[in-house]
Amino acid sequence: MKLYWSPRSRSFTTLWLMEETGQPYERVLTDISTGANKTPDYLAINPMGKVPALVDGDVTMAEAAAICAYVVDRYPQARLAPALDDPRRAKYLQWLFFATGCIEPAILQAYLKFEIPTSTAAWGSTTQTFDVLDRALETGPWLLGDDFTAADVAVGAGMNYAIRMFNMVPTRPNFDRYLDACAARPAFQTAAKLVA
Amino acid sequence: MKLYWSPRSRSFTTLWLMEETGQPYERVLTDISTGANKTPDYLAINPMGKVPALVDGDVTMAEAAAICAYVVDRYPQARLAPALDDPRRAKYLQWLFFATGCIEPAILQAYLKFEIPTSTAAWGSTTQTFDVLDRALETGPWLLGDDFTAADVAVGAGMNYAIRMFNMVPTRPNFDRYLDACAARPAFQTAAKLVA
Repeated sequence: MKLYWSPRSRSFTTLWLMEETGQPYERVLTDISTGANKTPDYLAINPMGKVPALVDGDVTMAEAAAICAYVVDRYPQARLAPALDDPRRAKYLQWLFFATGCIEPAILQAYLKFEIPTSTAAWGSTTQTFDVLDRALETGPWLLGDDFTAADVAVGAGMNYAIRMFNMVPTRPNFDRYLDACAARPAFQTAAKLVA
Repeated sequence: MKLYWSPRSRSFTTLWLMEETGQPYERVLTDISTGANKTPDYLAINPMGKVPALVDGDVTMAEAAAICAYVVDRYPQARLAPALDDPRRAKYLQWLFFATGCIEPAILQAYLKFEIPTSTAAWGSTTQTFDVLDRALETGPWLLGDDFTAADVAVGAGMNYAIRMFNMVPTRPNFDRYLDACAARPAFQTAAKLVA
């Protein structure tokens, strides 16, 4: 697999995920600070002009959480997702989509302080999004309990970006404990050095 | 399976999906206009206080696109998702997450006209989101070509909500053709009558 990534970007999520799989992969530097994500060659890979993107043989795909979901099902031996017949698959998928559909917009809303009626926003309210995540992390150590999954990569990377990298959202004790647990993982540390 | 839903809400997505599976399911009316989604009983099911939510035996989950992803893998005979070993699984996942992570916020941004630097928003720019979707629908009839999948339910329901139900986003010829194809499906029509 080839992963297109940039320093100082949200492609951290997928770098961390690839490192967690323990599988070899090729990193293709696509530096957003030089506009490498806006070249015609890159736009043919991801017309959204964003990193990350993944090429796996004849397959090309984008969207960070989708890449996480795809890769962990391709490498079941890494045990980063409950199998299709595991009842925990439901909450695993819920948190993967919650990362994309609720946490990401809530971070932006908290940071930029724009108002959206909570009945209008698909994600509901920013406060409620972080309250729900806070309670879900109360038991821990991971979203599904003892087993770390790709949902933790998606949620943990987003919260790490917002709290520890860019100070966009106030932290909370459960977030701190969770982000400490994420940051203690060797795969997280390898990815963090790459994007620094 | 029990699906918690409300008239005049985004739970249309999952009603349409359940109807597409052809499998029996129980609908639990949770009317957001009477605050039924804010009761303690419902918050125990989905602490975000949003519809839809799904109960499948001991499993409880929320987030519309996650429910779509879960249900179609539980009912593979409905052929609404490429199998794990099908190369089209990548683009299928990309569009499922694109619906949640790009289209939903882009609709909100187009409708409420708030400004976000495109490098800050995880979804990029609103115009680019709709441009990319427009080009992806050029060939059609569905996002993966000839085969209708749950990604079309997620994307189609979102665009139908924004364009035809609430006039939040201007339409385009490819969107019209796609939404006509969605609206021609019996499962769509059954779900549309329910939420009307």
